[in-house]
Amino acid sequence: MKSNLTPLEPKADKATVRRHNLSLVLRAVHDAGEATRAGIATHVGLTRAAVSSLVEQLLEYGFVSEWGKTSSGQAGRPGTVLKVSRSGPAGLGVEINIDYVTVCVVDLAGTDRVRLVEHFDNRGVQPSEVLARAARLTARAIGSAAEQDLVPAGVHVALPGLVTGGTVRQAPNLGWQRVAVEGLFAQALLALRPAHRPLPVSSDNEANAAALAELWFGAGTEGVRSFLYLTGEIGIGGALVLGGELLRGAHGFAGEIGHMVVDPEGPLCRCGARGCLEQYAGQAALLGAAGIDPDAGVQGVAELERRARRGDPAALSAVERAGRQLGVVVSGAVNLFDPDAVMLGGVYRELMDWLAPAVDRELSLRVVSGLWSEGGKRLRASSSLGDAARGAAGVIVREVLADPAACAERDARSSGT
Amino acid sequence: MKSNLTPLEPKADKATVRRHNLSLVLRAVHDAGEATRAGIATHVGLTRAAVSSLVEQLLEYGFVSEWGKTSSGQAGRPGTVLKVSRSGPAGLGVEINIDYVTVCVVDLAGTDRVRLVEHFDNRGVQPSEVLARAARLTARAIGSAAEQDLVPAGVHVALPGLVTGGTVRQAPNLGWQRVAVEGLFAQALLALRPAHRPLPVSSDNEANAAALAELWFGAGTEGVRSFLYLTGEIGIGGALVLGGELLRGAHGFAGEIGHMVVDPEGPLCRCGARGCLEQYAGQAALLGAAGIDPDAGVQGVAELERRARRGDPAALSAVERAGRQLGVVVSGAVNLFDPDAVMLGGVYRELMDWLAPAVDRELSLRVVSGLWSEGGKRLRASSSLGDAARGAAGVIVREVLADPAACAERDARSSGT
Repeated sequence: MKSNLTPLEPKADKATVRRHNLSLVLRAVHDAGEATRAGIATHVGLTRAAVSSLVEQLLEYGFVSEWGKTSSGQAGRPGTVLKVSRSGPAGLGVEINIDYVTVCVVDLAGTDRVRLVEHFDNRGVQPSEVLARAARLTARAIGSAAEQDLVPAGVHVALPGLVTGGTVRQAPNLGWQRVAVEGLFAQALLALRPAHRPLPVSSDNEANAAALAELWFGAGTEGVRSFLYLTGEIGIGGALVLGGELLRGAHGFAGEIGHMVVDPEGPLCRCGARGCLEQYAGQAALLGAAGIDPDAGVQGVAELERRARRGDPAALSAVERAGRQLGVVVSGAVNLFDPDAVMLGGVYRELMDWLAPAVDRELSLRVVSGLWSEGGKRLRASSSLGDAARGAAGVIVREVLADPAACAERDARSSGT
Repeated sequence: MKSNLTPLEPKADKATVRRHNLSLVLRAVHDAGEATRAGIATHVGLTRAAVSSLVEQLLEYGFVSEWGKTSSGQAGRPGTVLKVSRSGPAGLGVEINIDYVTVCVVDLAGTDRVRLVEHFDNRGVQPSEVLARAARLTARAIGSAAEQDLVPAGVHVALPGLVTGGTVRQAPNLGWQRVAVEGLFAQALLALRPAHRPLPVSSDNEANAAALAELWFGAGTEGVRSFLYLTGEIGIGGALVLGGELLRGAHGFAGEIGHMVVDPEGPLCRCGARGCLEQYAGQAALLGAAGIDPDAGVQGVAELERRARRGDPAALSAVERAGRQLGVVVSGAVNLFDPDAVMLGGVYRELMDWLAPAVDRELSLRVVSGLWSEGGKRLRASSSLGDAARGAAGVIVREVLADPAACAERDARSSGT
């Protein structure tokens, strides 16, 4: 027999129900920004008494705090305003990319509270060394967070490659194969903080993390729930969000739009195949086509933007050509996946003014539904709030919101109470 | 506030719970093939008494039937064997394609009980005329079903185009635009059967229906739950199934793999763009490249297969070239979606021996996860049970299984009891 057969009203035990409802109340406060006990009761469909007891627990944990009374202008008796705490549990995200590492601490309300960035070229460096560097930056970020009374509940590491089960299966642009990234990172962080409780470490692809940031902090907050996300870096990352959920595929490897094909006989890609989109619209290809050193990194992109802005023909034609090739491939992805929008992040954000017309032209011509020739700004620059480190930190925040009791219990155990 | 906040154990009213549990029991019998009341109770987590009462109701509706006692070899007292009925409610599916119409009646157990096919070229014919023809074939199928005591609970129509909200938005190969297919078909069927209860009519894209047939009756029954489905017809249909669910996209237009691009400067496609996959690996392109009349239809495909079988160089090279181009595009789709398998249906099924090696070569080279170079038969011919008409009929069967009470009540109303 198949297994998706469950009768209505399963008899969950009391502790499980309370745990679930604790999360329900915390998420209600989180999503509303501020709420009263009475408002929460109405919204989540629990009794006022049940909500009050759950709120007491959340206050005790330090996950919500009270902010005075509602004004008398509102209906009913004035209630105490509740908000999620600006101190206490937080999310910590790490983005390890080809030529930089970013660490970001986000509080329960979703605000960036610490952000540290270091630029160095990670190519050709041993994975353990790269992870040790990232751990050092992380330890500094934990220190800065502590000064603001924030305690990361876990670390989520985002990397440019195929990540599954705590392991980078393949990261062609870093040159990594089968690296147990969670274990190595946890070990490196533990070595730096031997007296502290080990933080749980999780990991994912960087474009997935950036797309989640876009969903939680960027376009998602304006109601865009299904989109294709592309980030132009040294490689091209991609991710798919459908109905507010990240689409991971059967093995967690979905979204590799950078290896869709422009020309099967084209230049050799680091993945071993020929003519992948990365070889036409990746950062190095863009810079090279404009006559800039392909390895010039951030400075090179800034230079390309300057040249495009002053109308340099080589720069404009390089960006236009990349836009056309990007547009052809993205049109195919849109025909396949039918999203509401396409978000361009990374270096594409800076080059949007010159890139977008060419991409738009292909979308308008090639998407069979015709929806993309009707205007309506379906092609967008990714929000400045949509970066991978922030999304990674958001993953931890979501975990706390989904099970505040587990987070509190972990803290209690580690402080010996 | 956002709206996905629901407390555990919602207080559903009794009638809703009974309705839900009626479906639960019917699906348990359906999925198991045969079951006893005691076995169902254990499996779905309801009391024996509750299950008995629900089974009585299903017997009364005629949705399940009793088949003697279990053998004494099994544990416990022998129980009465229950199976879903081979008579009573059934699904009726209609596939309207470019050069044929198929109507199929499937019983609750999933067996084909009636199948009628008519070949005629639907191109350049008024949509209302095509739908009237399909309705005539449907009326004949309903008659044949009645002779076997089967009563279709509804009609599901599958078409080669973008279908949403009962309307074909666009079907380039039929030449249809904005055709209210459900309304026109229901009207045509009603005109043929004025004395009968009007059957509910629903509609979808034909590749979606074929993929669902593959999921419910073909590879899905062997545990393949995430796959990309391609059907080579005059156009190329595509559909995506992920974790046992059809992926529809934000507007219901996902899966249009036939309009992914092989060469942006290539031949003009009926969709208005240049270089779409259809122009390289669609039926007409395949036949033309092999030196056969591109419009020769089924006979042409049979001729191509004969020539390939006897080693005709033009035929082999045409199929090999199409396979390579198909492989490049499908690799891109696999990089984007990460399915477990790719199923080739339609004319590709017949040409599989000569097509598959070229497709496999590209997949093995181009899929970055490396999972496709490890063997394991990820590229497969679609099952002979995976056709669109059968999938369409399956949609109706699933509706009956999901809410047997609604189906029984409709029947009761229309017979005046």
